[in-house]
Amino acid sequence: MNIERIRAAATRLAGHARQTPLLGSPFLDEIAGRRVLVKAECLQHTGSFKYRGGRAAVSALGSEVRARGVLAFSSGNHAQGVALAAREMGVPCVIIMPMDAPALKIANTRALGAEVILYDRAGGESREALGEAVRTERGMTLIKPYDEPEVIAGQGTTGLEIAAQAATMGIRAAEVLACCGGGGLTSGIAMALEADAPEMRVRPVEPEGFDDVARSLKSGQIESNEGPAKGLCDAILTPAPGEITFPIMQRLCAPGIVVSDDECLRAMALAWGRLKLVVEPGGAAALAGALFHNDSFEGDTVIATISGGNVDADVFQTALTRFGTLV
Amino acid sequence: MNIERIRAAATRLAGHARQTPLLGSPFLDEIAGRRVLVKAECLQHTGSFKYRGGRAAVSALGSEVRARGVLAFSSGNHAQGVALAAREMGVPCVIIMPMDAPALKIANTRALGAEVILYDRAGGESREALGEAVRTERGMTLIKPYDEPEVIAGQGTTGLEIAAQAATMGIRAAEVLACCGGGGLTSGIAMALEADAPEMRVRPVEPEGFDDVARSLKSGQIESNEGPAKGLCDAILTPAPGEITFPIMQRLCAPGIVVSDDECLRAMALAWGRLKLVVEPGGAAALAGALFHNDSFEGDTVIATISGGNVDADVFQTALTRFGTLV
Repeated sequence: MNIERIRAAATRLAGHARQTPLLGSPFLDEIAGRRVLVKAECLQHTGSFKYRGGRAAVSALGSEVRARGVLAFSSGNHAQGVALAAREMGVPCVIIMPMDAPALKIANTRALGAEVILYDRAGGESREALGEAVRTERGMTLIKPYDEPEVIAGQGTTGLEIAAQAATMGIRAAEVLACCGGGGLTSGIAMALEADAPEMRVRPVEPEGFDDVARSLKSGQIESNEGPAKGLCDAILTPAPGEITFPIMQRLCAPGIVVSDDECLRAMALAWGRLKLVVEPGGAAALAGALFHNDSFEGDTVIATISGGNVDADVFQTALTRFGTLV
Repeated sequence: MNIERIRAAATRLAGHARQTPLLGSPFLDEIAGRRVLVKAECLQHTGSFKYRGGRAAVSALGSEVRARGVLAFSSGNHAQGVALAAREMGVPCVIIMPMDAPALKIANTRALGAEVILYDRAGGESREALGEAVRTERGMTLIKPYDEPEVIAGQGTTGLEIAAQAATMGIRAAEVLACCGGGGLTSGIAMALEADAPEMRVRPVEPEGFDDVARSLKSGQIESNEGPAKGLCDAILTPAPGEITFPIMQRLCAPGIVVSDDECLRAMALAWGRLKLVVEPGGAAALAGALFHNDSFEGDTVIATISGGNVDADVFQTALTRFGTLV
């Protein structure tokens, strides 16, 4: 991975990915005790930053390889990002999803033109075996969700935008918080800022019980989470940092921050009331860190990436019922 | 009113008002049967386009007049827009609000630095008498909510942005729907598009029972609504079009569109699910028109202005409970 790969992805994404706005509110600044800016990737196509990586990866394939199609495993945002990118480029697309994935996410992925193959996660069916069959029979290329250079390059374009947008506001130094699962977004942003905003430093933010990256950064080696990846912040519950993403994070990131599910719900309610943005629980982790972990920061500006907004109505209602009137 | 006044307002607003994004979703296009783009003014400072008019009006005052302060009557979005503009420019600000206005809106207006004077609307207390007393004693300038050239000029900057943003997407012709109360936003956008996008035409959108502008456009004279301005779409329930705004709308607008409260709630749920935006009922009127009144349009593109997102949690929950799972 290198910065040239991120800049090349930015060139390919120009006119396709949205340049999402960098927003703020005096009410949020007051809670945090410093300036808080929010990179609103929930406004990206398909409702999350994953479209950037999907489009970057599909567009990087040679024309013959691309014509045979692409394949992804995902129960959520990566599925939709790859599906839309493939449709836009006229590329066949298979997404292998667990049959207990949210019905809406399955429907959305189909509506974006992908062929969805469902597998029985609980019954022990192997998605890898299914994927291998599709690859062998149809010659499709697997687009991994984070441990893949072109995907990291696509997510890194978020960091190029943060650097440029902050500069127009006169901001050079800041702590940049990224909602962190396998580390694709975090490592991509970290490399982009190393080049374009070297006074900024990246802090991965994870939910309690899934702080594999924070622990890995501390111990200096890849650490894993125990137990199944089930929880409120479903979008960022990965078992361990990636083999490509971890060394980048180790070199460039400051210590991780761990937030509670309640803090994510409260951040969702504040984003609803103060920014007018719809944020999913995992997508609110960085904002929760920025607002409720004041002691973790030193500077006068924190930039939080909101990674996505694909949330079911009942979960969103829970956030509003519990915290909506406190906004 | 003329286009030069709008361009001058744009110059004064540069670096202060946000250039809000023009968003869309293939899922909304499918519902409408044509391309739907959304100008997301809920992402404007203070959560509505009203900041544009407030800042334009305050910044247009001469320095001596400005130093004596500004005054506004409002129970909602105009209050916050004027309050923030005044605070940014170091200008004293009094907002006269009904004591039965939503507690959150009163709290927000105070938090933005304004001195809030409450009056007893139900008990027959006259806000005009209160305002006259403030003007006489303190020499403050009244900023009217819509029938005021500098306010119309500020709102019109929304139209300049729509023209420029649509042009970069290759769109020259479109019907542009505006949520319409007294006509400040509608007439401002209409004048901006007359100059910068003459193939676009503006359609005012109002809620059932408050269709004074639609009826006025039909009859050719100012018509009023009967009864008190109480209803779901509180932000756009004005008694009649303004004396300055109506002739502009009469000259430039195509027929009005009337939407139901249920259509606004459903549009709120779709904006939540498909655009990741928080929209208030009155702010969703134009999107409701774009999505559910297909027969009213001829071209292949409709642009709907989302005018604001300042909504209480219980109203938002109603929209999600009724329509959130249908998204």
